[in-house]
Amino acid sequence: MAPFTLIIGNKNYSSWSLRAWLTLKQSGIPFEEIRIPLDQPNTRSQLLQHSPSGLVPVLKHGSLTLWESLAICEYIAEQAPDRLLYPAGMEERAVARSVSAEMHAGFAALRQYLPMDCRSRISKHPIPDNVQAEIDRVLELWRMCRQEFGEGGEFLFGQFSIPDAMFAPVVTRFITYDVAMDDVSQAYAASILSLPAMQEWLTAAAAEVEVIDDP
Amino acid sequence: MAPFTLIIGNKNYSSWSLRAWLTLKQSGIPFEEIRIPLDQPNTRSQLLQHSPSGLVPVLKHGSLTLWESLAICEYIAEQAPDRLLYPAGMEERAVARSVSAEMHAGFAALRQYLPMDCRSRISKHPIPDNVQAEIDRVLELWRMCRQEFGEGGEFLFGQFSIPDAMFAPVVTRFITYDVAMDDVSQAYAASILSLPAMQEWLTAAAAEVEVIDDP
Repeated sequence: MAPFTLIIGNKNYSSWSLRAWLTLKQSGIPFEEIRIPLDQPNTRSQLLQHSPSGLVPVLKHGSLTLWESLAICEYIAEQAPDRLLYPAGMEERAVARSVSAEMHAGFAALRQYLPMDCRSRISKHPIPDNVQAEIDRVLELWRMCRQEFGEGGEFLFGQFSIPDAMFAPVVTRFITYDVAMDDVSQAYAASILSLPAMQEWLTAAAAEVEVIDDP
Repeated sequence: MAPFTLIIGNKNYSSWSLRAWLTLKQSGIPFEEIRIPLDQPNTRSQLLQHSPSGLVPVLKHGSLTLWESLAICEYIAEQAPDRLLYPAGMEERAVARSVSAEMHAGFAALRQYLPMDCRSRISKHPIPDNVQAEIDRVLELWRMCRQEFGEGGEFLFGQFSIPDAMFAPVVTRFITYDVAMDDVSQAYAASILSLPAMQEWLTAAAAEVEVIDDP
């Protein structure tokens, strides 16, 4: 099989990079990782060498160049069908895609007010109402998935699947900014954080030394 | 097979509704359509009867309720595999998903400055630079898909596929606001507009009579 290369941004800050990287790690597919520090003078020129949209993440596989984390995750799922990165059941898979797509296009207020910053612990309380409403929706989604599809496993649809990758950066945000979580959500967050791949990412994020003025 | 029901907003204004509706029409699957006029005093309560996120479109199929247009389109593609609503080739399909996901989560400036308003013809020239940059990216995507994957067909990946549904509302915006297009894009826009399903949608949009203060 042709080699896989994933181009990502800073591990501490690039939430979209984490989504694709975690999915690829969980797929078991070996890959090379190219990290491009964001918000540097030469970031844009470096990115455009790899990425048609100038954004990360980008997945390269042979002659194929893919962008957009959700599409990258779909491709990885197709390349590692035995890993069931989307649930096998037709209905579960459809709901998993709805949940993933909602994260992909939504939660703008949450993402802006609580940017991913894995290694920091910051208080931004009191949280504005529009951000809290989005936090509440995330927690509602987690409870719904765990209750209806969790099937005794640790993740949203039982075993690890792409929706978990989509929400992994949100878990780190809730930790970073000390966001209140219900019991179900706390247990779920603990499951995400205990993944060896997540531990590897967080360790690397903590070790990054770039000075970034405006994350 | 259990009946399909699609809940949509105003045909004139609801671009996300158009994406799911057009995909479902092109799938050949019969469905019932429930239209909820947006921005009315009782819109929110009507939506919440059908939609867990309070947004349209929502697809119901038997006991399954799906939201997020991109996930709805994936489900329709699975339900009508003979229609090849994503390209059959692995690489083409992956690029088609990248293009669709970019539309799903991106182009915020274009969407805000040039909201879908199918039946109107409005000048908003001069177009701000940040909006024009997004227009240019759309046109670049169209040219790239037509050139690399068009295969002599009329649409982005030859025959109609989900990326065409994702961009159909953008085609109507470019017409509404008289956005300059290159020859390839003009021909592509004409292909979208000539679809019988699009003609049906546009005719219905023109016939809607709601007064909306703030579309």
